[in-house]
Amino acid sequence: MKKTLLLLSLVAAPALAGEGKWTPQQVLELDPAWLRAQGLQVPPKKLWDPKRGTGLLAGAVNVGGCTGAFISDTGLVITNHHCAFGIIQEHSTPQRDLITQGFLATERKDELPGKGARVQVPRSFTDVTAQVLAAVPEGADDTARFKAIERKQKELVAECEKRPATRCQVSTFDGGVNYTLVDAVELQDSRLVYAPPRAVGEYGGEEDNWMWPRHTGDFAILRAYTAPDGTSAAYSEKNVPYKAEFFFPLSPEGVKPGDFVMVLGYPGRTYRALLAEEMAERQSRLYPRMRDVFGEAIRILEEEGDKDPAGKIAVASTLKGLHNVYKNAGGQLAGLKRGRIVEKQREAEAAVAAWATKNSAKWGGALKAREALLAEQKATSKVFEREFLLGATGRLARGPSLAVTLARLATERAKPDLERRPAYMEREQVRIKDRLEREQKNVFLPAEKRLLTAFVRRAQALGADERIAAVDKHFGKTFVEKDVAAKVDAMYAATQVLTLAERMKMGTETLAQLQARKDPLLAFGLDLAREQEALDEAQDRRDGASSRLRPDWRKAVLAHAGKPVAPDANGTLRVTFAKVQGYSPRDGAVYTPQTTLSGMLAKHTGEEPFDVPERVSKVAEAKRYGAWADKKLKEVPVNFLSDADTTGGNSGSPTVNGRGQLVGVNFDRVWENVANDFGYNPEVARNVNVDVRYVLWMLDQVENADALLRELGVRKGPPVAGETR
Amino acid sequence: MKKTLLLLSLVAAPALAGEGKWTPQQVLELDPAWLRAQGLQVPPKKLWDPKRGTGLLAGAVNVGGCTGAFISDTGLVITNHHCAFGIIQEHSTPQRDLITQGFLATERKDELPGKGARVQVPRSFTDVTAQVLAAVPEGADDTARFKAIERKQKELVAECEKRPATRCQVSTFDGGVNYTLVDAVELQDSRLVYAPPRAVGEYGGEEDNWMWPRHTGDFAILRAYTAPDGTSAAYSEKNVPYKAEFFFPLSPEGVKPGDFVMVLGYPGRTYRALLAEEMAERQSRLYPRMRDVFGEAIRILEEEGDKDPAGKIAVASTLKGLHNVYKNAGGQLAGLKRGRIVEKQREAEAAVAAWATKNSAKWGGALKAREALLAEQKATSKVFEREFLLGATGRLARGPSLAVTLARLATERAKPDLERRPAYMEREQVRIKDRLEREQKNVFLPAEKRLLTAFVRRAQALGADERIAAVDKHFGKTFVEKDVAAKVDAMYAATQVLTLAERMKMGTETLAQLQARKDPLLAFGLDLAREQEALDEAQDRRDGASSRLRPDWRKAVLAHAGKPVAPDANGTLRVTFAKVQGYSPRDGAVYTPQTTLSGMLAKHTGEEPFDVPERVSKVAEAKRYGAWADKKLKEVPVNFLSDADTTGGNSGSPTVNGRGQLVGVNFDRVWENVANDFGYNPEVARNVNVDVRYVLWMLDQVENADALLRELGVRKGPPVAGETR
Repeated sequence: MKKTLLLLSLVAAPALAGEGKWTPQQVLELDPAWLRAQGLQVPPKKLWDPKRGTGLLAGAVNVGGCTGAFISDTGLVITNHHCAFGIIQEHSTPQRDLITQGFLATERKDELPGKGARVQVPRSFTDVTAQVLAAVPEGADDTARFKAIERKQKELVAECEKRPATRCQVSTFDGGVNYTLVDAVELQDSRLVYAPPRAVGEYGGEEDNWMWPRHTGDFAILRAYTAPDGTSAAYSEKNVPYKAEFFFPLSPEGVKPGDFVMVLGYPGRTYRALLAEEMAERQSRLYPRMRDVFGEAIRILEEEGDKDPAGKIAVASTLKGLHNVYKNAGGQLAGLKRGRIVEKQREAEAAVAAWATKNSAKWGGALKAREALLAEQKATSKVFEREFLLGATGRLARGPSLAVTLARLATERAKPDLERRPAYMEREQVRIKDRLEREQKNVFLPAEKRLLTAFVRRAQALGADERIAAVDKHFGKTFVEKDVAAKVDAMYAATQVLTLAERMKMGTETLAQLQARKDPLLAFGLDLAREQEALDEAQDRRDGASSRLRPDWRKAVLAHAGKPVAPDANGTLRVTFAKVQGYSPRDGAVYTPQTTLSGMLAKHTGEEPFDVPERVSKVAEAKRYGAWADKKLKEVPVNFLSDADTTGGNSGSPTVNGRGQLVGVNFDRVWENVANDFGYNPEVARNVNVDVRYVLWMLDQVENADALLRELGVRKGPPVAGETR
Repeated sequence: MKKTLLLLSLVAAPALAGEGKWTPQQVLELDPAWLRAQGLQVPPKKLWDPKRGTGLLAGAVNVGGCTGAFISDTGLVITNHHCAFGIIQEHSTPQRDLITQGFLATERKDELPGKGARVQVPRSFTDVTAQVLAAVPEGADDTARFKAIERKQKELVAECEKRPATRCQVSTFDGGVNYTLVDAVELQDSRLVYAPPRAVGEYGGEEDNWMWPRHTGDFAILRAYTAPDGTSAAYSEKNVPYKAEFFFPLSPEGVKPGDFVMVLGYPGRTYRALLAEEMAERQSRLYPRMRDVFGEAIRILEEEGDKDPAGKIAVASTLKGLHNVYKNAGGQLAGLKRGRIVEKQREAEAAVAAWATKNSAKWGGALKAREALLAEQKATSKVFEREFLLGATGRLARGPSLAVTLARLATERAKPDLERRPAYMEREQVRIKDRLEREQKNVFLPAEKRLLTAFVRRAQALGADERIAAVDKHFGKTFVEKDVAAKVDAMYAATQVLTLAERMKMGTETLAQLQARKDPLLAFGLDLAREQEALDEAQDRRDGASSRLRPDWRKAVLAHAGKPVAPDANGTLRVTFAKVQGYSPRDGAVYTPQTTLSGMLAKHTGEEPFDVPERVSKVAEAKRYGAWADKKLKEVPVNFLSDADTTGGNSGSPTVNGRGQLVGVNFDRVWENVANDFGYNPEVARNVNVDVRYVLWMLDQVENADALLRELGVRKGPPVAGETR
C-alpha cells in the first residue's frame, strides 16, 4: 500500500460520497474533516492504527467466505443466517430440526460447536510488492512471469502459515501495483448461540433475492472460543470465550433516513479497473452471449422437465443455477446501460490518456502499457466465442462435462502435486470424487441430448479461426440436425460415463486406461480436455502479460486522480462510508429505505418463502414492539437500505454508525445495483441490511433471550429468575 | 331520483373525499362550500341544471360502452385508443396499416367514417319508479314480479325510442329504490380524426395492464357529425360537425400532484350495496373457487399447448381470457383483504340495523327485508358449488359449451321472439351463428378432453343436494378416472358437434331433430341445457325477490347516512371528485403520481409491448418538448394517477380540472384497486390517466398537427403555410 500512498496527497475527499471500498490504510488518507462532515464521530485513527496494523475495523472478521463482526468482548459474533447455515444444518435432525425451529442457547454450555465455523481475525498487512516482483527472472516471457509470481506467492503464504492457527494470502491490488501479504489468526472453535427459524432468516427466499422491499431476518449469532491462554485452539470444554479487543456494541436507537453508516467487510471481486474496451466486451458480448446460451439451456431443461416428473426433479438444481447466472447477466446489462458505466469509463480513461500524453516524459510508458493491454484484449476478442463455449460446457450437458473432468483428473494426477492446476491438487481430490458421485442425480437423458446437440450446433457455427477440434472430429464440421442428433444418441447409448459405478472407477484410472476404454463420450471428453488445457495455458500467459502491463497504466490513473482511489475488491478488509437512503427503481416509483413488521405480515401467505412462524407473527400482530419501535415509523423496522459500496463477500458485514455501534447487518444488494461491480452508480447503489432493532426485537419479544440481551448490554437491571449468566 | 333527494339533507359532504360515483342530481345535493374547498371553481349549477336536465357533465358522452368527451364546439371527441380501436381496424389494410402507423386527418375530408362508432349524448333523465312499480300485479309472486318489471322496462324503452335517433334505457338505482328512464340522442356519423400508433396507444400491453408506473398513450380523437339541420343522421358528405353545447377545452397547463380533478363518465357495475354476507360469500367462496377452477384450466391448457405448436395456437385465446379472470379474482381477494372491505361493510350494516331497531316503528320493515335477503342468500349459498360449475362451463371445454348453445338455441327459437331469453332473441341470431363458427379455431382435442374430465370430476364430487343430473346420467355418480376418461374419449370420438359444417347445420335444427341425432356429446348438452334453463328461472325469481326486498333495506341505509350516498354504478352518467396523488402499493415502496417521456424510453426494448415507434422516440430522445414540459418535472408527463372512484365503463372518461378544462383521459385502474367495486379504499383507490400534455406533445411535436391544435384552441397566431383549416 505504501507505494500508492506516496503518489497521493495525504488528505482528500472522494468524488462520490458513497463510492469506494477503502482499504484500512486509505481511511487515513481521506480528509478527516470530510469524514466528520459525513457523520464519522470516532477519530479515523481509532478505525485503524497503521503502526499496530489494526484498529476498530478489525472488529469485522472473515467467517468462511462471509463477513462477521464481534459485538461483545466475550467473543459474540453476528453474521448472516445464510453464512451460519452450515453449523445450523450440522446440528439439525428430524427430531430436533434447528433449521425450521431456529436455536437459542440459554446457557453457554448449550452453545453448539461447528466443524467448519472458523473465524479469521486480521492481524497484519505487509507490503510484499518488492519481493514478488524480484522473483520474476530477468528476460522472463509472460508465461514464465506468471509462474514465477504464482510460486513466490505460494512460498510467502507457506512461510507465513508456519505459525500456529494462521491463515495467510498474498493479495493483488490494482492489477499488480501492489502485492500485500495478509496475515490472520484463525479461531478454530466457534459455536452457535442463536439462529432464527429459516422462515425468518430466509424470508422471501429466491423470490425476494436481490429485491426491495425486503423483510428478511438474515442474521445469526456465534461465539468464538480460545484456549484458556487466549490462543486459538480446536473445540474443547476447557476453552473460554475469545476476548475481542475491537467490537461493535449494538445500538438500541438504530438508524433513520439520512443517517451516516459504515459497512465493513471482505468484499470478493470487482472489475472497475478494467479498461473501457474490456468492460465493453463484457457488455456487448459476454453478458448477451450468457443470456443467449443459458437462456436456450433453460428453455430446453424446462421443456424436457415438463414432460416427465422425474426429469423435472433431475434438472431442478441445474435450472436453479442457470436461472441465477441468467438473471445476474440481465442485471449486469441493465445496470451497465442505466449507469452508462462503460461510457463513463471511456471518458475517464480518455482524460487520463490526454493528461499522460501531455506529461509523456513521465507517463509515456503508461500509454504504451495501455496500448499493449488493448492489443491483448483485441487478440483475445478474436477467440471470444470459442473460449466462451469451451468455458460454458460445465454449465450445460453433464455427460461431456464429467468426461472432461475425468480426462483432466487423469492428466493432472500424473504430475507432482505442486505442479498441478490448483483445482486438481491433492487437497481437492475429495471434492472432485464427491462431484463425480453427486452429479448422478442431475442427469436426465432427454435434456442431456438436446443440450449437447445445441452445444455442437453452436460449435459448428464458429468461424475458421475458432474451431473446436474435438467437435469437428466427433460430430463433423457442419450442423445437420438429424445427423448430429443420431451421433449424440449413439454416444449416449454406448457410454458408461453416466453409469455411476463405472464412472467412479474411471475417476481412478490413468489417461491410457481411459483411452483404452474406447468409450465414445469419454473419447470426446479426452479431446475436449486437451483444448481446455491449452486454453488454461493461454490464460496463464495473458495473466502474466497483464501483471506486467496493467500496473504501469494503473499508476498513471492513480496519479492523475490526485486523491485516494479505492482499489477493486480482492477479498481483503475494506470499509465503505454511506447514508441510509431509498432510491427510485424506475420512473413513477420510489423505494423508501425502511421496511416494517407490518410489511412482513402483509407478505405472509403461509407458504414458502412467505411463511412467518406463528411465534413471530403472533407477537408482531399483537404489536408487542417492546423498546424497539422506530419513533417515526411507530413500528419495529425490519430491513433498511444504504448506499454502501458492497459486493459478494460482504454478506454478514457489520453496518455501524458514526460512533462505532452496530445498527445493522448487511446481507444483499438490490437488483438495480448488480452492475456496481463495474462502477458505482449513486442513483441505485443500495445495499440491504437487517435493522439491529429487528434483531433485538426477535431476541427480546419473540425469544425472551434475556441473558443474551444482558450480555449485549442492551438489557439493564438485575437478572431475572432463572437467568444463568 | 327525487325520492332519494327527499330523504336527504339538501347540502352535505361525503365521508371520504374521493369516494362516490355521483349522479348529476346528487352533485347539487353536495355542500357547494365543500366542493369549492376541494377545488371546484365552476358553480355546481353549471355542472348540472336540474330544470333542463343537462349541463357541463353532459359533455361526457357514451361511445359504444366506453366514455368520451367533447373537446370543441366542432364535434371533436376524445376517448381511449382501445375504445376507438374498431374504427381504426375498419380502415386498416396491409397496404395502409393504420393500426401500426396511427392516423391523422390533415383535412376534414380525410376523416374516416366508422360503421360502429356511435356517440350517445344524454338528453334527459326521468324518474319512472312509480310507473315501473305500478306494473307489478297485486299478489304477484317473485317470478311474476320480475317478469312484470322486465316487461314494463321494455315498454318504456320502446315508447322512448319512437323518436328518431334516440337510445333509451331504464336504469335501476340502489336495487330498485329508484328506476330512471335515461334518454340520449345517438349521433350516427362519427369519424376518426387522430389515432396514435398502436405501440403508443397500447404501450405496455397486457404486461402493464392494471399496473403503475404506466406510459401509455391510450387516446384517440373522433369527430361527431349531424345533418346540416343539426339532427342526427347516418354518414353523408353533406353532414356538418356537431355543435356541442357543452365541451371541455384542453388545458395546456395540465395538473400537478395535489390538484383537484373530476372524472366524468359511464361506469358499468359495482357491488357496494350488497349485504356484508353477500360480499363475504364472494370473498370466501366465489373468488377462491374461480382461482381454483380457472387455475386448473390454465394449467391444463398450458401443459397441452406446450406439447403441440398447433394446440398452443388453438388454446391461446381461451388462455388469455382465463388469465384475465384469474388475475382479476386474485386482485379482488387481495383488495378485499387489504381494504377490510367486508368487515367494514359488516360494521356499517350493524350500525344501520341498530339504528333501525331503535326506530322500529318506521324501519321495522327494513330490518325484515334484510332478514329476508339474508335468508335468500343462505338458500342460494347451499347450491353455490353446483351453480358455479354450471355457470363456468362456457369458459371450459368447448364441446359441451357448444352443445348447450345448440340445445338452448333450438328451445328458444320455438318461442315468440319477445318471450325468449334476451341472449336468444332474433337480433342476437347473427352473433350466435358467428360464435358457432368462430369457436372452431379454439378447439384442441387433448385439452378439451382433460377439461371435460376435470369438470366431471368436480361435478361428481358435489353433495347430494347439488347433483348435476346430466353428469350423473352420462358419466355416473362417482369419479373413477379411467372410466370417465374412457367415456370422454368415446363421446369425442362419436360426436359431430366439433365438425364445423355439421355444427352449423345443427344450429338450424329443432330440438326434436337434435335429439334424433343420438350424438352423445349433443345428448349431454341437451341434458345440461335443461338444468341451465331451470337455473335461469330460479335466478328470475331471486331477482324478483331482490327487487321486492332490497329497496326497503337500502332506504334505511340512505336515511341513516343522512347525507348523499352515491348509488352503485349502473352504466349511467356519473362524476367523481378526486385529487392527483400517488400511493404506497406495499411497505417500502411509494408510487409517485406522474410518469414521463424518459420513463417511457427507459421501458423501450424494441419488442412488443415496449416498442416506441421511431418517430416518437427520436423526438423524445432529442428532448424536443415544445410547450408541454411540466415545470417541476422538466419533462413531458405521460400518465398520472388520481384517487377518482372509477370502474369499467369509465374508459375514455374526461379528467377535468376545477375550471372544467380537460387535463387527462382516464384509461385504467391500478391492480391494488380492483376490489374498489366492493368498497372505496382511499389508500389505494387510484385511476390512471393520460396526461393532456402528452396528447398535446404527440399532436404538436410528433405529428405536427397544427390545424388540429389550432381548432383545439391551443395553437395561436396565423395559420402556417399548407394549413387547410
